[in-house]
Amino acid sequence: MIAKKMEDMVKNSSVIRAMFEEGKKMAAQFGPENVYDFSLGNPSIEPPVSVKEAFIDILNSEEPNLVHGYMNNSGYPDVRAAIADSLNKKFDTNFDERNILMTVGAAGGLNVILKTLLDEGDEVLTFAPYFGEYNNYVKNHCGVLKAVPANTVDFMPNLEQFEQMLTAKTKAVIINNPNNPTGVVYPVETIKVLAEIMVKKGKEFGTDIYLIADEPYRELAYDGVEVPYLTKYYDNTIVGYSYSKSLSLPGERIGYLVIPDSVADFENVAAAANVANRILGFVNAPSLIQRVVARCLDAKVDVEGYDKNRKLLVEKLSQFGFEFVRPQGAFYMWIKTPIDEKEFVAAAKKHRILLVPGSSFGCAGYVRLAYCVDYNMIERAMVEFEKLAKETKVN
Amino acid sequence: MIAKKMEDMVKNSSVIRAMFEEGKKMAAQFGPENVYDFSLGNPSIEPPVSVKEAFIDILNSEEPNLVHGYMNNSGYPDVRAAIADSLNKKFDTNFDERNILMTVGAAGGLNVILKTLLDEGDEVLTFAPYFGEYNNYVKNHCGVLKAVPANTVDFMPNLEQFEQMLTAKTKAVIINNPNNPTGVVYPVETIKVLAEIMVKKGKEFGTDIYLIADEPYRELAYDGVEVPYLTKYYDNTIVGYSYSKSLSLPGERIGYLVIPDSVADFENVAAAANVANRILGFVNAPSLIQRVVARCLDAKVDVEGYDKNRKLLVEKLSQFGFEFVRPQGAFYMWIKTPIDEKEFVAAAKKHRILLVPGSSFGCAGYVRLAYCVDYNMIERAMVEFEKLAKETKVN
Repeated sequence: MIAKKMEDMVKNSSVIRAMFEEGKKMAAQFGPENVYDFSLGNPSIEPPVSVKEAFIDILNSEEPNLVHGYMNNSGYPDVRAAIADSLNKKFDTNFDERNILMTVGAAGGLNVILKTLLDEGDEVLTFAPYFGEYNNYVKNHCGVLKAVPANTVDFMPNLEQFEQMLTAKTKAVIINNPNNPTGVVYPVETIKVLAEIMVKKGKEFGTDIYLIADEPYRELAYDGVEVPYLTKYYDNTIVGYSYSKSLSLPGERIGYLVIPDSVADFENVAAAANVANRILGFVNAPSLIQRVVARCLDAKVDVEGYDKNRKLLVEKLSQFGFEFVRPQGAFYMWIKTPIDEKEFVAAAKKHRILLVPGSSFGCAGYVRLAYCVDYNMIERAMVEFEKLAKETKVN
Repeated sequence: MIAKKMEDMVKNSSVIRAMFEEGKKMAAQFGPENVYDFSLGNPSIEPPVSVKEAFIDILNSEEPNLVHGYMNNSGYPDVRAAIADSLNKKFDTNFDERNILMTVGAAGGLNVILKTLLDEGDEVLTFAPYFGEYNNYVKNHCGVLKAVPANTVDFMPNLEQFEQMLTAKTKAVIINNPNNPTGVVYPVETIKVLAEIMVKKGKEFGTDIYLIADEPYRELAYDGVEVPYLTKYYDNTIVGYSYSKSLSLPGERIGYLVIPDSVADFENVAAAANVANRILGFVNAPSLIQRVVARCLDAKVDVEGYDKNRKLLVEKLSQFGFEFVRPQGAFYMWIKTPIDEKEFVAAAKKHRILLVPGSSFGCAGYVRLAYCVDYNMIERAMVEFEKLAKETKVN
């Protein structure tokens, strides 16, 4: 018998598996070119060529027992120093290797920092709509996730409600910018107000409230929009980063945490995060890929491809009358459903369009469309989207 | 402030870090060639050449978005099928891809299966001396680890006490064969008796007791000794494996769980383990290295090197009068301390010999010596071991 706490999750996962199986059946029935799968956040653009070159050069030139061996649980010191330097250049920060902990992707990093910070019953706040896995990550470490209700006007953080929901039990706040699922990018002004509120409430309660900046989509921003670096606006910020999207390496599980000297109880937080990385079973971030990313700090995938997809979708879906907030980051669009969310998802499926219901992100009445797909597939899907709009009386 | 539950672990880790720093100071003071570090289980033998060849061939010939992308959280189906076939050939088992879940090393695999099985307060049994991290892994998932006291005659499992310690709350038993820290290999006869006891007690309590076989050292066995494959002796067995030692890839974090069809509640256990791999933040085992190990299923490191080290140590340390159980697996020796354990570790350090105290493995009065080191270092250390034997009046 499995753990009782796993039973519901197994049920949910079998629903998702059923959807996936249905997608495969549809592909078999209608031909894969006639199924329009916008459900997955799996990057479609290839990694930059420098990634392959770095892999092969390291394999040919570095000591195998160094490249594939254990290192400090926080990662190779030279890799961490190179990342710190690169961040300092990009964001005018002042990090060094002590501030960087290499992790098994952003998901690994979030679990490491939550294990580091949370005692049973500690609260973590985030803003709806939000990446549903936060629920699981917080529960893993016996915390309680609370979501600030969505601001459905522009999907910026609802800061008034946020201020009311911060309590003496709030140990951390997770913010995801650029945002999954909305594609919105929070600007500096918003971050400054958020930081002011957190400073004020921390003083009021006499507590240290940590801000966890979950930033796997940092490099995916369009229209020249700036993604603020949060350690500059709130001392108590820990950044979680991943190369999954910036270098199209999601399977490799490589990312890092930035734990600045300015965070409360820095020495202990850094030491505990190192221990957490080990005891959660990660032990360390995979070794060879650590050395690869350190050589590719200025590389990034050709974001133009995603931008082209975005522009086509924004133009066409507006034409068809769909309502959505203009996406400026990540590779997601967040679309209001003109009819009941479940009915809309089902109607879309009849047109062989696969979308994720908004309630998976704690915000019903919407769907998430992931546009990290082939441009041609989007083009082919447009006629079906137009029919869907008419059927569901978007206008 | 960090979590209260992390505070003691940070203290312990700073003790270990202090030891490590002291080792570095000793190396600076006496020269690295005069410090004999037997404390770490970091493989000294290089990976087989086929590993590098596989890396480069995959990078040159397979689709980058396949090689570095997301796949099923349980791993690539073709990789899992190849591993299942290889196990079937080696052990006359009957696995297929549904039975294999790729993990972030054995540590990742143990956490996945413990998350899958344990509710709060569930008990897990293991046999002292044991790998200390089991305590952390079980605590991560709110279980309680209980260690069966050591059988100090031959360090085989103490099966009489084991039978008494099994209760209706026992959800799992972890067995590590070949054993860290003792180097002992449990033979088939022992496993059969252990299985009988578990079957009997499971019936008595009306519970399913899972046997978790932690086998990162499986390929490291000497003197032609056989390491039994536990799924053949107890239906409810889940195997955790890692390539860390067999292919000298500990930094890469690659291993797998075997969940046979014969385990109780198989469908749910396999589905829940897939979910656990995702929500613990592993998401999936690193992708490229999955594809590499699938091409190297018949490769293994040159175990002769470790065997040569073992033979030299066994010969010399016996001559000097040290008492130990003859190691036949892994790369560890388990030596009785002729004086108080702490005093012995300190005395060894004066001779620039670094050993891990037995109490770290739940069994005081012993030290663990890891011989995954250069043969020359062992040779150089022998004169110091001889002095240490005389000083501590081994005879």
